[in-house]
Amino acid sequence: MTEALSFTDIVRLIEQDIPFNRLLGLEVEAFTGDAVQVGFDAREDLIGNYALRVLHGGVISATLDLVGGLTALAAILGEMETQTPEALGERFARFGTIDLRVDYLRPGAGERFTATGVPLRVGRRVAVTRMELTNEQETLIAVGTGTYITG
Amino acid sequence: MTEALSFTDIVRLIEQDIPFNRLLGLEVEAFTGDAVQVGFDAREDLIGNYALRVLHGGVISATLDLVGGLTALAAILGEMETQTPEALGERFARFGTIDLRVDYLRPGAGERFTATGVPLRVGRRVAVTRMELTNEQETLIAVGTGTYITG
Amino acid sequence: MTEALSFTDIVRLIEQDIPFNRLLGLEVEAFTGDAVQVGFDAREDLIGNYALRVLHGGVISATLDLVGGLTALAAILGEMETQTPEALGERFARFGTIDLRVDYLRPGAGERFTATGVPLRVGRRVAVTRMELTNEQETLIAVGTGTYITG
Amino acid sequence: MTEALSFTDIVRLIEQDIPFNRLLGLEVEAFTGDAVQVGFDAREDLIGNYALRVLHGGVISATLDLVGGLTALAAILGEMETQTPEALGERFARFGTIDLRVDYLRPGAGERFTATGVPLRVGRRVAVTRMELTNEQETLIAVGTGTYITG
Repeated sequence: MTEALSFTDIVRLIEQDIPFNRLLGLEVEAFTGDAVQVGFDAREDLIGNYALRVLHGGVISATLDLVGGLTALAAILGEMETQTPEALGERFARFGTIDLRVDYLRPGAGERFTATGVPLRVGRRVAVTRMELTNEQETLIAVGTGTYITG
Repeated sequence: MTEALSFTDIVRLIEQDIPFNRLLGLEVEAFTGDAVQVGFDAREDLIGNYALRVLHGGVISATLDLVGGLTALAAILGEMETQTPEALGERFARFGTIDLRVDYLRPGAGERFTATGVPLRVGRRVAVTRMELTNEQETLIAVGTGTYITG
Repeated sequence: MTEALSFTDIVRLIEQDIPFNRLLGLEVEAFTGDAVQVGFDAREDLIGNYALRVLHGGVISATLDLVGGLTALAAILGEMETQTPEALGERFARFGTIDLRVDYLRPGAGERFTATGVPLRVGRRVAVTRMELTNEQETLIAVGTGTYITG
Repeated sequence: MTEALSFTDIVRLIEQDIPFNRLLGLEVEAFTGDAVQVGFDAREDLIGNYALRVLHGGVISATLDLVGGLTALAAILGEMETQTPEALGERFARFGTIDLRVDYLRPGAGERFTATGVPLRVGRRVAVTRMELTNEQETLIAVGTGTYITG
């Protein structure tokens, strides 16, 4: 008998089984059809400019891409009738980022960063999401728009 | 007496003094007004999908952003009359990515990856560059367009 | 004695003195620091697909670019101390679109279309705005992100 | 008996049967798997800035979107076994722009404008193309990247 993947299973998959997410230290704080949120702590390794001590642009784009993808996946999962590991695995295998735009609005200064996503449209073939990255003082650091292949 | 920064100085700055570039293992292979090239080896840490063993999208976007920025900087450096560390430092401090678009064309499979950039326009205020990422078999994995603030 | 340009002056400039805006039939419905809105009626000429009778993508991108630019301008105007035609003319001459991303979410069907903009960041050199286009039933047809040179 | 659509049929469809293309005066100069080119003459109606007498940004984005879409379509048509009007109509009905990025590099001054496209990847579900717009002196005015749904 196969069982549906739990929230804990999916979070572990994203945080632990994707090496680069582990390297970044990304934590999935929410992952439902209503809210998707990813957070991470400031860390020496993630710096892009020593003088200013701000996040590297690549850390920002990686985080926005992940939270956009999770936003699209959460919407898709909500519509799937059976969520067996097999059905999910098949769906995940066809999923991927088509393109990503990132707008760097302000220097990535802070102690804790939070990325959130909103689905603009989730269709059978393509999903479009908008994403934001803020620090612990709710300063808007960057926004993004992502397009994902969904099926 | 101050002296101009050498190619070796700038490469060390980019490879060693920016922690996240070091984490990615990025190597600056060319950095002139004619050609800018960045390379890196496949590595367990950079994987985004265990089953397919391909690069994480964030590694791709970080590399394209870097090579785009270097392409714009190389063009600017070529036009500067004095390249003392002070003059360069001042210029670098005003430099930054405004926005970035990345198109993920094919899975990031391979052993060695190479990113190159071409300047489309480098002005006193804004620069626009196009970038490409290929593997050792010259498969085109991703392209990007970046806009940078130059002054 | 020079006087500040009135709302009516600016609207006439945008609607009547820019030929392509007149061709599209764009109407400036709001233009303040708090809200910028542009509207237009469905018209035979603006169709991109006869079978579906929907807006041409170029009409959508032109409208989003305009409303994004106006959003950035409204924020800039609010900060200017003197708004004489000369000061405004000088500021407008340096203003322009750097880049634009448009996401086409749903077919542009409807009778009346409304585009709105929100400033994400308005700096001395660059402004970034997000835009939306809806029809009279508030269906979200397209969104965009624009980057503008401001000085 | 049904026959394949000729080049002339397709060109007429694009130039004459899409009202907004007619309004812009777009002419399809080449439409094969090897080269796609669209041209148009400078005209009072297409101006976006009276003082500078340059093209409106919306004219540029509309033209780049069209040439990108044609570039993707040309690649798809080359792979179709039967090109009856029915088969083409079905394929065209599923085709559309997902998103578009336009980079405005230089003012759109000139007498005659030419847009060309290059396919970066054309898959069964999504195509990605890069586009350029030049004037009669081969000044590069704008570039774009488009993503299209293909099936």
